[in-house]
Amino acid sequence: MTKPKQLKLGALLHGVGGSTSMWRHPDAKPDASVNFELYKSWVQKAEEGKLDLIFIADGLYINEKSIPHFLNRFEPLTILSALAGVSSKIGLVGTLSTSYSEPFTVARQFGSLDVISGGRAGWNVVTSPLEGSALNYGRKEHPDHGKRYRIAAEYLQVARGLWDSWEDDAFVRNKETGVFFDPEKMHTLDHEGEFFSVKGPLNIARSQQGGPVIFQAGSSEVGKNYASQVADAVFTGHDTLEEAQEFYRDVKTRVASFGRNPDEVLIFPGIGPILGDTPEEAERKYQEVAGLVTIENALNYLGRFFEHHDFSQYPLDEPFPELGDLGRNSFQSGTDKIKKNAKEKGLTLREVALQAATPRSSFIGTPEQVADQIQAWFEAGAADGFMLAAAVPNGLEEFVDRVVPILQERGLFRTEYESDTLRGNLGLPVPANRYVQAKEPSPLV
Amino acid sequence: MTKPKQLKLGALLHGVGGSTSMWRHPDAKPDASVNFELYKSWVQKAEEGKLDLIFIADGLYINEKSIPHFLNRFEPLTILSALAGVSSKIGLVGTLSTSYSEPFTVARQFGSLDVISGGRAGWNVVTSPLEGSALNYGRKEHPDHGKRYRIAAEYLQVARGLWDSWEDDAFVRNKETGVFFDPEKMHTLDHEGEFFSVKGPLNIARSQQGGPVIFQAGSSEVGKNYASQVADAVFTGHDTLEEAQEFYRDVKTRVASFGRNPDEVLIFPGIGPILGDTPEEAERKYQEVAGLVTIENALNYLGRFFEHHDFSQYPLDEPFPELGDLGRNSFQSGTDKIKKNAKEKGLTLREVALQAATPRSSFIGTPEQVADQIQAWFEAGAADGFMLAAAVPNGLEEFVDRVVPILQERGLFRTEYESDTLRGNLGLPVPANRYVQAKEPSPLV
Ligand SMILES: Cc1cc2nc3c(=O)[nH]c(=O)nc-3n(C[C@H](O)[C@H](O)[C@H](O)COP(=O)(O)O)c2cc1C
Ligand SMILES: Cc1cc2nc3c(=O)[nH]c(=O)nc-3n(C[C@H](O)[C@H](O)[C@H](O)COP(=O)(O)O)c2cc1C
Repeated sequence: MTKPKQLKLGALLHGVGGSTSMWRHPDAKPDASVNFELYKSWVQKAEEGKLDLIFIADGLYINEKSIPHFLNRFEPLTILSALAGVSSKIGLVGTLSTSYSEPFTVARQFGSLDVISGGRAGWNVVTSPLEGSALNYGRKEHPDHGKRYRIAAEYLQVARGLWDSWEDDAFVRNKETGVFFDPEKMHTLDHEGEFFSVKGPLNIARSQQGGPVIFQAGSSEVGKNYASQVADAVFTGHDTLEEAQEFYRDVKTRVASFGRNPDEVLIFPGIGPILGDTPEEAERKYQEVAGLVTIENALNYLGRFFEHHDFSQYPLDEPFPELGDLGRNSFQSGTDKIKKNAKEKGLTLREVALQAATPRSSFIGTPEQVADQIQAWFEAGAADGFMLAAAVPNGLEEFVDRVVPILQERGLFRTEYESDTLRGNLGLPVPANRYVQAKEPSPLV
Repeated sequence: MTKPKQLKLGALLHGVGGSTSMWRHPDAKPDASVNFELYKSWVQKAEEGKLDLIFIADGLYINEKSIPHFLNRFEPLTILSALAGVSSKIGLVGTLSTSYSEPFTVARQFGSLDVISGGRAGWNVVTSPLEGSALNYGRKEHPDHGKRYRIAAEYLQVARGLWDSWEDDAFVRNKETGVFFDPEKMHTLDHEGEFFSVKGPLNIARSQQGGPVIFQAGSSEVGKNYASQVADAVFTGHDTLEEAQEFYRDVKTRVASFGRNPDEVLIFPGIGPILGDTPEEAERKYQEVAGLVTIENALNYLGRFFEHHDFSQYPLDEPFPELGDLGRNSFQSGTDKIKKNAKEKGLTLREVALQAATPRSSFIGTPEQVADQIQAWFEAGAADGFMLAAAVPNGLEEFVDRVVPILQERGLFRTEYESDTLRGNLGLPVPANRYVQAKEPSPLV
């Protein structure tokens, strides 16, 4: 009997995040976003549960209305690198923007993380939704949504080109002959493009997984096309199984249409499981967290998606206001959905804000029930895996202790890591080096 | 009886570096520059020896003539962060260039490292000597030497301003009242300068040491002035005690002339101790390493300081060639010194290249002799501390095992860390936050 297809699991480590007010929960550690010991315990717990990866989100602009987690938190590359030193098998994935950084530096930093961790790095390529980011980087304006994706496309070409600077066997290191490297196996990129001009070579070689795993999280049309062309994995969010299935089919079809293998682009909806010994206890836990969110918190939270728009100017119990194009240059897919949903269901501002800030997870119940839901989504073609966000304090610990064993029992999830690398555990092939003549099919790690 | 003044010690971790050919030594690990386990063992050894800090150097351009250590090595912020996770007391200092990066990102990354490590971060602010760096960053030209320092000056103002975004008690985190932070204690920089425009606030607060320790390593006139105005510590290199004393007096005088306390700018000459049971054994060890450097290696090594100039075009045994201004826009202080020395002593190209590539350390001998030299330099006003570079394989391990105990015995070096932070161990005050009215003198950590 062959094993059933295995699902993949990631854990979003987001400090005091979760809901915008979760830090007020009696069990929450309110300094979590800058507490290294806590991050260390999380990554070790996730590794104990044999999870594929941990994930660090990011953003480049704050103001006094930002939610607690965004104000004071670790920068992704530094915290991922620190976690590399205290873990050994789990993937280390983080967000970094292509709109406000230099490809030589970023290719180098992710390349270095990849080598330090022994092939466990992943990069969530984002284009930065927040307009205010421009102000922190001396730019006259935030590039528009379409241009940001054009920049991102060229950027990733450059990064991947730099990662191929050295063939895997370039470093001979022969003490007798004094030959340190084979110059035939060093490649200078000499990229000259619309947005970037980068000579190379990069001053670090590929890790054993052949370069960081590329995640993407855009869900607009252009975002989905970008992900389908270049990503190894897609991070997304859906309220219902049907919506998730639709997204899954859509992206896999696009992947195929670009001539790629749909099995080599993994789709991870984010979910926020809440567990109880009984369904009622789980529901109570959800209500407790949701109840911490004031309407002011919710309006601020909503506002951030719309370029930090001030929603306190509108009446709360009238229909959601007309906003025109506001938000389309920021979180396009998210704000389009919020507007459409408000209009279709005739929601008030209060309803929209509270729904955004206290989303009701479909994964609330006993460990068995949550495992059932996960299995249902997985088997119904809605997901290749899931990204777990802690919707209650200790959400990760409880999931690892109580749900993972059930998934393992059912043969849906590993009991041991298959590989030392992230690509290996995700079942993704090592990318070929563009400069190497294809001699044989590229091996799995 | 009061303790004598304490000397400070740092260790440069530079992989297969040291001499350009040290990787060929029978005891060398030729993959050292990308070997995380080795870096981990080094940082732990350095911590066992109660050293103040480890130091990671950097560069932004390589080509086929670069020396082995530069071709394939860890990026500083990622390796320092990884080492933060596996150490607990030692300072973590790394080089990062102000000519090819964004202050918002760099302030954030060093700030994050500083928080992750509990106040142990340090930043060696450099302006990038290598002209080729421009090619990796889409720039038409490498800014000239003077302009690079003007950029660096404004850059550090911005970084320090961003580090002051949050007063130390800004994060109230009161679960009862729902107040996460005090908006009066959040500060938006709104910097608009010649080179940068950065709004802020930074999305990470200061660590308990109040911001990374600033190192500087420029030795030109403008470099020394810059260091004297802004640095907490200066990394330098000297062949003789007299030269080191002269530099020390010079910099301390400049520091005072800028109205700063000369005791709050520490001067660290780099030294490469080589130990033997007898002076003869130490000398043999030096000769063995020096003997690995071929004349081609030495010419490449020398060439890098002069914008990767090809020295193989000149006769080896004739006087060092006339180079005009070549090198002045790169490693200005270094190339000026090489030219002056060659002219004064009538050296040939071969002699200059071999001297550059196999410098003869003044710290070769028995552990007692090396400790004597260190004490002599320290007491003669040539140094506040030293940056140890491994001039032989296992140089760090041998120094910690054999020289540190002698320095401790003589009361010159600590037997326990005084503090958990780098500033605390270096005896430097926590910088005041610019937005806080001075109420009382700033405490030592
Ligand atoms: C699940 C998910 C996670 C995301 N994580 C980040 C993140 O960490 N940082 C960020 O700047 N944007 C993040 N985004 C935003 C996207 O990267 C993207 O900028 C935004 O959705 C707008 O692009 P789009 O219109 O193509 O979707 C995330 C989006 C989704 C759906
Ligand atoms: C001991 C020492 C260490 C240095 N380390 C670095 C380094 O890690 N990276 C770098 O780009 N430059 C480094 N430099 C070069 C200086 O930062 C500086 O760019 C160079 O000396 C030219 O500037 P100057 O003319 O002011 O000295 C170092 C210089 C010295 C003396």
